[in-house]
Amino acid sequence: MKFEVITKDNSCNARTGRLITSHGGISTPVFMPVATRGTIRALTFRDIEEIGFEIILSNTYHLYIRPGIDILEKAGGLHKFMNYDKPLLTDSGGFQVFSLSDLCKVHEYGVEFKSHLDGSSHLFTPEKVLDIQKVIGSDIMMVLDQCTNYPVTREEAKNAVDRTVNWAGLSYRYWKDSFDTDRQALFAIVQGSVYPDLREECASRLLQHDFSGYAIGGLSVGEPKELYREMTGITLQHIPDNKPKYMMGVGSPAEILYAVMYGVDMFDCVMPTRIARNGTLYTSLGRINIKSAANSDDFSPLDPNCGCYVCRNFSRAYLRHIFRMGEISSLIYNSYHNLFFMKEFLNEIRGSIEAGTFLQVYKKWTDIYK
Amino acid sequence: MKFEVITKDNSCNARTGRLITSHGGISTPVFMPVATRGTIRALTFRDIEEIGFEIILSNTYHLYIRPGIDILEKAGGLHKFMNYDKPLLTDSGGFQVFSLSDLCKVHEYGVEFKSHLDGSSHLFTPEKVLDIQKVIGSDIMMVLDQCTNYPVTREEAKNAVDRTVNWAGLSYRYWKDSFDTDRQALFAIVQGSVYPDLREECASRLLQHDFSGYAIGGLSVGEPKELYREMTGITLQHIPDNKPKYMMGVGSPAEILYAVMYGVDMFDCVMPTRIARNGTLYTSLGRINIKSAANSDDFSPLDPNCGCYVCRNFSRAYLRHIFRMGEISSLIYNSYHNLFFMKEFLNEIRGSIEAGTFLQVYKKWTDIYK
Repeated sequence: MKFEVITKDNSCNARTGRLITSHGGISTPVFMPVATRGTIRALTFRDIEEIGFEIILSNTYHLYIRPGIDILEKAGGLHKFMNYDKPLLTDSGGFQVFSLSDLCKVHEYGVEFKSHLDGSSHLFTPEKVLDIQKVIGSDIMMVLDQCTNYPVTREEAKNAVDRTVNWAGLSYRYWKDSFDTDRQALFAIVQGSVYPDLREECASRLLQHDFSGYAIGGLSVGEPKELYREMTGITLQHIPDNKPKYMMGVGSPAEILYAVMYGVDMFDCVMPTRIARNGTLYTSLGRINIKSAANSDDFSPLDPNCGCYVCRNFSRAYLRHIFRMGEISSLIYNSYHNLFFMKEFLNEIRGSIEAGTFLQVYKKWTDIYK
Repeated sequence: MKFEVITKDNSCNARTGRLITSHGGISTPVFMPVATRGTIRALTFRDIEEIGFEIILSNTYHLYIRPGIDILEKAGGLHKFMNYDKPLLTDSGGFQVFSLSDLCKVHEYGVEFKSHLDGSSHLFTPEKVLDIQKVIGSDIMMVLDQCTNYPVTREEAKNAVDRTVNWAGLSYRYWKDSFDTDRQALFAIVQGSVYPDLREECASRLLQHDFSGYAIGGLSVGEPKELYREMTGITLQHIPDNKPKYMMGVGSPAEILYAVMYGVDMFDCVMPTRIARNGTLYTSLGRINIKSAANSDDFSPLDPNCGCYVCRNFSRAYLRHIFRMGEISSLIYNSYHNLFFMKEFLNEIRGSIEAGTFLQVYKKWTDIYK
């Protein structure tokens, strides 16, 4: 994997860049839609290609549970299994183990957990999650980290940082020894909850190894927006500019803008498709709820400024009707539109950084999306 | 609407034809996918166009209940509302009133019922369902008929025939007086349950008016296959060959073949998409259940002889995985494949009638689909 910064904004830390992986290049800042179990919810890969996404994310924990590593190995990796030949990032499974599984027990050597599907017992170690990601064949892999909830005591946060740094070191050595490091990149994850000095400590200790990139983890877990933003700024200061910076699990327009301003290059989030399935749609005029009675005889497009298949073809009245009727096509059209919006939104952000007008775009969108 | 028979098989009543409606032409025999509420379940209209369907069916009862006639009128009809510009057939709502709604009461002048959604009271008369279909803008409309369940007594069946014939007469006169009959065709429906003489009587009385086409109703409602087939043959004998013959609600491969052999030109059925959502898929080798454990590491296509998007791109193992995970994309891919299968199946039937080899095709497929 290679990364280069292409344009840097003069008045803030926003930048554009180019990430080259073994399955192709990615212009940053980039939003990655989430194919949790090897498929984007309610969409086909044709939709994803048509919208123009250059990279997607998939979840190691979910794939490990189903279909399981033996199937993915026989398939020749996830790219082949799901017939997708563009860049793919996988998380380490750490976040899901801590949030989804039952009875998760953290040891020095790894984390023991029971499957949320059938209660079977499993162990993830730093090495094991890399082995799984090797089978998956991800272009960008993530290290196993220890996530913390919000709030946690300083002591708990410090312990999680120590373990995260220790696991990252083990991951780094294993990666260097046993992987084609050009073909599969490895990102570390900065933890530290909402403690500025722990964030700094975690970042600087992780920087002792030359990871391919650095992610910010453990945020967007319930902390107040101000704290979240403060931690974002602080953590980013400690990641060198020649590395890609990835903000995990963030996807609201306002928070993407904020993080881009502080130098973030990569985002992923299930929110655009999740809210779409609940009828909430992003438009150039703000969020709209397609269920609203006001749409019942509104034959104008969802978003007059959007050029997507849905906005070019269907009215608000029609989209409301099929949503109310619980039609699957409503889930398809809503998801398609919201992901198209995200792609265009990131295109506009990149274009504005290149044109030196990012702060104007920042203001325009934060007036619409608070 | 115009209809002409193009080829007639020498050894049975199978025929190909061409139906010309105000929204375009249709080669028959044809299978019509069902857009109950103005959308095909789990698919987009792009899919339907890509597969190549020339006509779809929508349900008057459902559209009348939601979004309602006022919305469809404001939209300028269903074609515009759902942004689909090809031929459209609508049923009369009769079947749904009798099967879906609560407290349905049949009067000489029409049928009173309560909505299955909110319990509100409504009345369908022969004229009213035509008014609704005028607003919808269907290319082919159906008359209101009285459907019977199975089994019914001869007396009940006779009463339903009398009422059906009476309503058809009222419908015919209303259509001739108040419609652009070239733009919106009108089909009558032959009832008579499983009583051969009632079937004959109903057909011959309906033929006193020059309807655009004739449908066979009141079958596939639980009667034994032998009786169903006998009634199909008998009813079809009494419909003249210069009229399109439409078998309502039939869609299994074996029954389509049987009905085509007796001269049927048009079919509709929700079954191909309904069973798809349950994981049952039509292939050239027979029905398969994608859930089956045998598919878990089968990386071959669903159907090696199918050229559809799904078979060209995904393995059985992948399709099984996303089905088990309850992914919406599984509903999309399964529905797409089964409708593609139906389209190809009807193409093959038409081709074989033109080539004089229909009975070979009949035998080939009935060996696979009993």
